[in-house]
Amino acid sequence: MGFEVSIGPRIRKSPFFDATVAAGVVSFSAYNHMYFPVSYGDPMGEYWRLVNDVAMWDVSVQRQVQLRGPDAHALAQAVCARDLTEQQIGQGKYTPMVDHSGAIINDPLTLRVAKETWWISIADLDVLQWCRAIAGERLLEVEVSEPDVSPLAVQGPKAEDTVAALLGDLIRDLRFFRYTDAEVDGIPLKVGRAGWSKQGGFELYLLDGSRGTDLWNLVAEAGAPFGIGPGAPNPIERVESGLYSFYGDNYDGSDPFEVGLGRFVDLDADIDFIGKAALLARRARGLRHELVGIVFEGPPVSSNEDCWAVTRDGDRAGTVTVACYSPRVDGGANIALALMDVPHNDPGTAVVVETAAGPAAGVTATLPFL
Amino acid sequence: MGFEVSIGPRIRKSPFFDATVAAGVVSFSAYNHMYFPVSYGDPMGEYWRLVNDVAMWDVSVQRQVQLRGPDAHALAQAVCARDLTEQQIGQGKYTPMVDHSGAIINDPLTLRVAKETWWISIADLDVLQWCRAIAGERLLEVEVSEPDVSPLAVQGPKAEDTVAALLGDLIRDLRFFRYTDAEVDGIPLKVGRAGWSKQGGFELYLLDGSRGTDLWNLVAEAGAPFGIGPGAPNPIERVESGLYSFYGDNYDGSDPFEVGLGRFVDLDADIDFIGKAALLARRARGLRHELVGIVFEGPPVSSNEDCWAVTRDGDRAGTVTVACYSPRVDGGANIALALMDVPHNDPGTAVVVETAAGPAAGVTATLPFL
Repeated sequence: MGFEVSIGPRIRKSPFFDATVAAGVVSFSAYNHMYFPVSYGDPMGEYWRLVNDVAMWDVSVQRQVQLRGPDAHALAQAVCARDLTEQQIGQGKYTPMVDHSGAIINDPLTLRVAKETWWISIADLDVLQWCRAIAGERLLEVEVSEPDVSPLAVQGPKAEDTVAALLGDLIRDLRFFRYTDAEVDGIPLKVGRAGWSKQGGFELYLLDGSRGTDLWNLVAEAGAPFGIGPGAPNPIERVESGLYSFYGDNYDGSDPFEVGLGRFVDLDADIDFIGKAALLARRARGLRHELVGIVFEGPPVSSNEDCWAVTRDGDRAGTVTVACYSPRVDGGANIALALMDVPHNDPGTAVVVETAAGPAAGVTATLPFL
Repeated sequence: MGFEVSIGPRIRKSPFFDATVAAGVVSFSAYNHMYFPVSYGDPMGEYWRLVNDVAMWDVSVQRQVQLRGPDAHALAQAVCARDLTEQQIGQGKYTPMVDHSGAIINDPLTLRVAKETWWISIADLDVLQWCRAIAGERLLEVEVSEPDVSPLAVQGPKAEDTVAALLGDLIRDLRFFRYTDAEVDGIPLKVGRAGWSKQGGFELYLLDGSRGTDLWNLVAEAGAPFGIGPGAPNPIERVESGLYSFYGDNYDGSDPFEVGLGRFVDLDADIDFIGKAALLARRARGLRHELVGIVFEGPPVSSNEDCWAVTRDGDRAGTVTVACYSPRVDGGANIALALMDVPHNDPGTAVVVETAAGPAAGVTATLPFL
């Protein structure tokens, strides 16, 4: 359609904002009260760069919620539905968060930064206030704040070569979801092997918001021999990889089991957290809907502006949350993530996707596609 | 600068989205996980229409958080820093919300819809989850949900004529911040005399999200004789009127006194609410900064992309959160809202505004300007 995004101070600019403008960003979304660069105008180029080489993208919108103080661990464990007992300093875990009813409210990577300091790297919801509410109600001795931390993602098969060129070969030894301190040109960083793609790579947490352009340019320079270019969390690769996007890929009330995150919930560990009793009850009851894949026919779809209904014999059976054309699935096919109502969630179910261009025959599939 | 806004299902469209597109919207912001139409491309026309005649705008982004059940009143009183004891059904109150430290987290209009049902009409923060956190921690018997309610604002000196033409002359008797049920062409509404301008007017709460275009067109038709046209919360009129915008016009940690909302906080009533003890301590300590006005020199500014520093003798003294050119203040002047550090908050203080175009001499002023 083509509307402008209004740029003003009520939504915050990333430290990389100017660099993304210089790199040719064409469209923004908003996320956690920040502008979020989502396209540089070449969807397939950005996709292949991520899949074959290396892409860099601004995910400052993954704000960190810092818990610091004697009760930081207690608060982190209260708000995360995963066992953090043995978590080491420098270790991150993918931690679904649920409310008291068991409904998912976020799916951050939660990092133990120091003995009494945790960072929760959040999806688009005000987890800062959620954590303050719990700390306040429980009289916990913990400071909950948003530190000056802005992630820059480097993703793709040549991400390791890029980051090694920037920070040295020692970074190659970093294990998955491990973070270490680093510095380049006087810019303080925390670097982890992580990122929202299945192509491998790193997140560089910029720890000085005044140095965003400097860091962007250094990464671009280090990655130039490997074909680096700007990108964003990739809408095609993430659907192929079955990567869940909080808020977009769930209903208000969906639980982690229903969006495919059951394996990250520790209901049988000797810990307590918000929503544990509710999740035990939900596990016993079973799913109401499930996030699954769909492969569907018709001309290639570039994206979906709205959610689409999924039907069986004319009756509502689910909701497509995101759709795209994958050049790699089945040698080229339309694919989608969909919240399918039980019992329409079984793989291989014939369905109709009510796309913006009309109905299209499809079949459900297990995730990931690739 | 001119970037596109990415339209996709992760951010929700308003029920009025199609109508605003048909009306010629040119730019969107995002607010409470929804697209928020903010300009139709004629800033001064939209301003004068509001000031002289009547404007209509989509504020579905003011989502309602519904509290329903035996403990609904208890939860509403816990989260609002204002005495709700005597609040009648159909009555709204402007209610700052603070966290346990006394920091402002929202400034909704809170409406008693029924004996055990309240609607909190929120600014841009996840109050739904905040209320669920408190209800969950306190084991309150209350359902916290987001109902199908989407406000459409009709504002300006001819708003009453417009709404009377739509709904009948009885609506003229509605008092300020009072809401009543109504229906037009089978569309269920709740109508209140309220709105985010000082020009007078109404908010029509659409209670059936499938009828957005119908309601929009009926309002446009009813207002045509009075010169109605599309608009948005107006950036000039709201600065002239000193209307605070949550999130944009405060720091993380600002309290209601510091943003000019002290008179809406009931610290001396025989009630308890979250943050009361902290606010008593803050009242005793005094302000750290204060939201005030500034009139400043230089060529007319249309808006500010970023916050601007305010200095005195070269030292930081505050922050401009929003700036514009007012054709009515002092016969035409640049004006701004600014968070001025104490003691630089006194009216009449000579300051320098570090605008994007360079430094400009200014002087602080009491709010509102008009």
